[in-house]
Amino acid sequence: MAGNTFGKAFKITTWGESHGRGVGVVIDGCPPHIPLTEEIIQQDLDRRKPGVGPASTARKEEDLVRIVSGTFRGLTTGTPISLMVENRDAKSSAYNKIKDLYRPGHADFTYQKKYGIRDWRGGGRASARETVGRVAAGAVARKLLSIKSISVISYTVQLGGVRVSTIDVAQIDRNPFRAPDQTAAAEMAKEVAGIKKAGDSIGGVVEVIAQGAPPGLGEPVFDKLDAELARALMSIGAVKGVEIGAGFKAAESLGSENNDQISPDGFLSNNAGGILGGISNGEPLIARAAVKPIPSIETRQQTVTIDNVATEVSVKGRHDVSAIPRINPVCEAMVCLVVADFYLRQKTIRGF
Amino acid sequence: MAGNTFGKAFKITTWGESHGRGVGVVIDGCPPHIPLTEEIIQQDLDRRKPGVGPASTARKEEDLVRIVSGTFRGLTTGTPISLMVENRDAKSSAYNKIKDLYRPGHADFTYQKKYGIRDWRGGGRASARETVGRVAAGAVARKLLSIKSISVISYTVQLGGVRVSTIDVAQIDRNPFRAPDQTAAAEMAKEVAGIKKAGDSIGGVVEVIAQGAPPGLGEPVFDKLDAELARALMSIGAVKGVEIGAGFKAAESLGSENNDQISPDGFLSNNAGGILGGISNGEPLIARAAVKPIPSIETRQQTVTIDNVATEVSVKGRHDVSAIPRINPVCEAMVCLVVADFYLRQKTIRGF
Amino acid sequence: MAGNTFGKAFKITTWGESHGRGVGVVIDGCPPHIPLTEEIIQQDLDRRKPGVGPASTARKEEDLVRIVSGTFRGLTTGTPISLMVENRDAKSSAYNKIKDLYRPGHADFTYQKKYGIRDWRGGGRASARETVGRVAAGAVARKLLSIKSISVISYTVQLGGVRVSTIDVAQIDRNPFRAPDQTAAAEMAKEVAGIKKAGDSIGGVVEVIAQGAPPGLGEPVFDKLDAELARALMSIGAVKGVEIGAGFKAAESLGSENNDQISPDGFLSNNAGGILGGISNGEPLIARAAVKPIPSIETRQQTVTIDNVATEVSVKGRHDVSAIPRINPVCEAMVCLVVADFYLRQKTIRGF
Amino acid sequence: MAGNTFGKAFKITTWGESHGRGVGVVIDGCPPHIPLTEEIIQQDLDRRKPGVGPASTARKEEDLVRIVSGTFRGLTTGTPISLMVENRDAKSSAYNKIKDLYRPGHADFTYQKKYGIRDWRGGGRASARETVGRVAAGAVARKLLSIKSISVISYTVQLGGVRVSTIDVAQIDRNPFRAPDQTAAAEMAKEVAGIKKAGDSIGGVVEVIAQGAPPGLGEPVFDKLDAELARALMSIGAVKGVEIGAGFKAAESLGSENNDQISPDGFLSNNAGGILGGISNGEPLIARAAVKPIPSIETRQQTVTIDNVATEVSVKGRHDVSAIPRINPVCEAMVCLVVADFYLRQKTIRGF
Repeated sequence: MAGNTFGKAFKITTWGESHGRGVGVVIDGCPPHIPLTEEIIQQDLDRRKPGVGPASTARKEEDLVRIVSGTFRGLTTGTPISLMVENRDAKSSAYNKIKDLYRPGHADFTYQKKYGIRDWRGGGRASARETVGRVAAGAVARKLLSIKSISVISYTVQLGGVRVSTIDVAQIDRNPFRAPDQTAAAEMAKEVAGIKKAGDSIGGVVEVIAQGAPPGLGEPVFDKLDAELARALMSIGAVKGVEIGAGFKAAESLGSENNDQISPDGFLSNNAGGILGGISNGEPLIARAAVKPIPSIETRQQTVTIDNVATEVSVKGRHDVSAIPRINPVCEAMVCLVVADFYLRQKTIRGF
Repeated sequence: MAGNTFGKAFKITTWGESHGRGVGVVIDGCPPHIPLTEEIIQQDLDRRKPGVGPASTARKEEDLVRIVSGTFRGLTTGTPISLMVENRDAKSSAYNKIKDLYRPGHADFTYQKKYGIRDWRGGGRASARETVGRVAAGAVARKLLSIKSISVISYTVQLGGVRVSTIDVAQIDRNPFRAPDQTAAAEMAKEVAGIKKAGDSIGGVVEVIAQGAPPGLGEPVFDKLDAELARALMSIGAVKGVEIGAGFKAAESLGSENNDQISPDGFLSNNAGGILGGISNGEPLIARAAVKPIPSIETRQQTVTIDNVATEVSVKGRHDVSAIPRINPVCEAMVCLVVADFYLRQKTIRGF
Repeated sequence: MAGNTFGKAFKITTWGESHGRGVGVVIDGCPPHIPLTEEIIQQDLDRRKPGVGPASTARKEEDLVRIVSGTFRGLTTGTPISLMVENRDAKSSAYNKIKDLYRPGHADFTYQKKYGIRDWRGGGRASARETVGRVAAGAVARKLLSIKSISVISYTVQLGGVRVSTIDVAQIDRNPFRAPDQTAAAEMAKEVAGIKKAGDSIGGVVEVIAQGAPPGLGEPVFDKLDAELARALMSIGAVKGVEIGAGFKAAESLGSENNDQISPDGFLSNNAGGILGGISNGEPLIARAAVKPIPSIETRQQTVTIDNVATEVSVKGRHDVSAIPRINPVCEAMVCLVVADFYLRQKTIRGF
Repeated sequence: MAGNTFGKAFKITTWGESHGRGVGVVIDGCPPHIPLTEEIIQQDLDRRKPGVGPASTARKEEDLVRIVSGTFRGLTTGTPISLMVENRDAKSSAYNKIKDLYRPGHADFTYQKKYGIRDWRGGGRASARETVGRVAAGAVARKLLSIKSISVISYTVQLGGVRVSTIDVAQIDRNPFRAPDQTAAAEMAKEVAGIKKAGDSIGGVVEVIAQGAPPGLGEPVFDKLDAELARALMSIGAVKGVEIGAGFKAAESLGSENNDQISPDGFLSNNAGGILGGISNGEPLIARAAVKPIPSIETRQQTVTIDNVATEVSVKGRHDVSAIPRINPVCEAMVCLVVADFYLRQKTIRGF
């Protein structure tokens, strides 16, 4: 009854710890005849690499993916696709200091309570390194969707107190925060510099857009498209909130404002974020994820040892100031996985 | 690959349409020896009844539940518990006008696209009446949790533009909005009266608290406790956003503010909403759901017929002004189901 | 983690006890637009009725099925189909004598050990009455398959010591044992008469054939078509063995005999029972189920009370001499469910 | 909707092809604190190695297993256990001759029909090499069960026409057929020698016994213990029939013979094979699997090319004469997996 599997038709199971031998994923249910190479997957993996921008750590993770099964001469065969990335740059001794205490904001405490044992090196299974498997599998899902002209992108709409005021997709890759607004990006740079100096960290909000999804994806009642998107995004370690379309703003809107009216040419607005009754309506799918500040900070904090003795901790080392922007490709991967899964599931419903 | 099942250990499957013969749920996985009567379930069902307050419709729904299987002499036996409520007050003729068009904000459009057929009477399967099955099953989960001293309550923290400023649990049942703040409740009454007069509708935000859950509930990586809570709440028709603990506020907090520090007596704050790394930490579980305004409004709105011809629609009849407060017991039910499921799942992990 | 659900794409959940209020099933995943009426389902249910032949009891069970949800104007809509049959002819007092003891060959002992509680009236959930839900759901699956020209039939190839020597399908409905061989049927009649007189019971073997299934159904590695057929048939209470194609005879064959050679016009034999590597090859699917003698017999037998005190039991009353032929439609139903499920699942693999 | 996952609480997903980079398995749901080393797993893997006896091929497969995740300092941690074996001795060129035709009795035909593509090297995913993942996972399950004093053994009760007449467990490892009867083993040796010379192959029957399983394992209605054992064994490529306890013999027994009577000291016989109503009764669990002859034979056979042109095939090379005895540890592994899964599942039912 463990929870390392995601999806029903396009089903993935991830495995691996931060400082074990490696991390990986098995994809079960990918249709045959999809062109798939290590390069395609590597492209997405490279986007979650550390060391890209000022909000990121200087750690070197090569993360070279290997396709260990499931393809034959560059095509998927319908059998399980096993993907693996070896762990290389793993200095576990750096974690010796914190092995006997619970870092605030981390899963140390709860893993210990749940299992009575934990691999404390680098957070073990609870490390963000776990998302390598998600991103690798997401790249395969993305490839699948691309064949059906469905694309998934993401960008940062908020970093700490700085919100973007325009969405200019062309800007996303031109700044280290993946902000679609250069002015906001400049402010973000200032904010991050200050926080880094203070040895603190900061959160943000990521928006993900899936374009080209046909109407009909999503399964009432519990497997609604928005419900699965919420689960998918909230399953990312640092995410504490999820919105679809207008989201929390809908709570203070009138029905006459929030309803998306319809004309023969389509919907006149998209407050629904492309989803009605849990099913896609053909408009772009829009989801946002609230990302908490990274819990590993230099600021001293109260905590207890595993024997419940009061102590203090200051987490030094190569830690990011924010999960933004590295969390962006992870959010995209999860949305790719959800949409691919429902795309396949819908095939059992229609056209019988 | 349809989605009418929720839970893995405490698994429920709901069925039924708004104007069919009835609605119901089958619970598979409830442990034996739990005292269970129709009265216990009816209590929760009565709380989602319409006609209770000014935000509610005058429709009469009796909703008498029958336990059709799974108990013997007042105790559960471990076999499937089948619960059923007949539909009585179902005037389908009232829906004749809208059978050939898509009501904005409703699932009419997407059900038609997905299935090519839909029971248009009262929204069919997409009706809020579907939640009868959830609430009935949730009552059984609540009974189960009560044996372990886990309780789940909810209240309204926002109705349209009115936010509560205090949480006084004693006030919740003293006003028709389930607001834990009498001053806010009075403002809500005014707001609702105006919106009702205008033939419009309004949304809100519900907060759910589960108290008494032990540390260790929730399964990494994808079946995190917060991920399942997000899915559970987002699967409710009107919900467009979900937060855990500090939620979106965490996105603009510093790590040093957001981390919950720990003392030998426990956590010093609860920004995490009781969940770290997807696993409960023993603190109260806190989730919030953003509820959109009810889409059925008298205000005329543009739409199209099922043949894509432009038309207008004004939905008259016995509709609520807001899904608040009737959605509260539904949110509670979903949280009860999630917590009960993980409680049972955790038994396969520890104590082996 | 209970086990009352079967299938993944065409998923059913059954519920109900022998002497509770009723028995039923919820089907989740049936495609829309399938013509479905109560008459269609009733036809299959009537075939499992008691009182048809000499091997059967005189009990009167009307078993009128109601479609409680999931259809609209005679067509399925893609929403859950809830089917229900009320229990009428239920004299529980007849079971008072056996409530405190374990009947040999029955599930009394194991239900008590597993759950610590059981509805002892008529076997409760372990009663053959549970198969009403299977047959009702199987009738819907059969309807689905008929649209794709796939048909499923069954007949009795052995009753106690009597084996059929020819398979003449035209004979099946002309004798009360569903034997495809009139000579064997006459011998069966004699055998059954003697056993009835002796207050004993007898088993048999049922063969099920599915014709028209296209190549490609079944999912390697664990969800092989033959593996699911085995599970499906073995899940019927009285079944103790399952064979596919040549079955146990294959164990003593040479490879050169057992291999089905292939010509441009198709396979030259069908020892494989239509399945290679767990996937259908286009030939008829052939499965056989070994059915044990009904454990309720008048012959006195040693047993113990629930307090483990030695006692004897002689089960009198309206019991069948053999589960044959009433188990035939149950076997057919299970095969229909398996084939329908894989038919839908295959749609997620090909034609992407 | 692919089928490479087995189990619900102790869940495994296998991957890999015969001539790809490797084969492996991910175990999700293994409780923490179980001592686990590569040696423990290797022991079971070594038992399925080829080249042990006269019925086996001379191929050299080293099959060294690596634990890639899920343990920490020799103990399981509750996180996914990833096990992997690299493919070494893989001469794919040997298969060039058969890449464009369908070998009779193999899955070449059905994989091609199902997927439209297949890795023809050594049977690809349909190769018996796939069972490496099963045996590795089974070894972990066996370790788990050993802690609860549950043991699983197997032996050969039939090889072609030779049946054992005694069950002397001490003999099993003293002959190359795993026959618990030395006289029968000697006859088997003769039979195999003749068949080998003739370039043909032969099947057999394996019996598996699980001892020490407590009463209460198995979930009615569809996830019965016997149903899952049947699925588990039938999912092994070469298996065409499964029996529990008396099996097909029960079909011709009287109720008075087949019922296992009960005394205060326990059951007086075990025709039920330890299972009543799908639930274990505390007696030894007994299952038998009918294994077909290996389809790869030197004898010339008719077949067609993938373009449906008539041709002949004679499969030369390093093939076993019988899947016996190498299939024994695979059968044991599957039974270990089933019992471990139900052991964990039962924990969600009782002791709440």
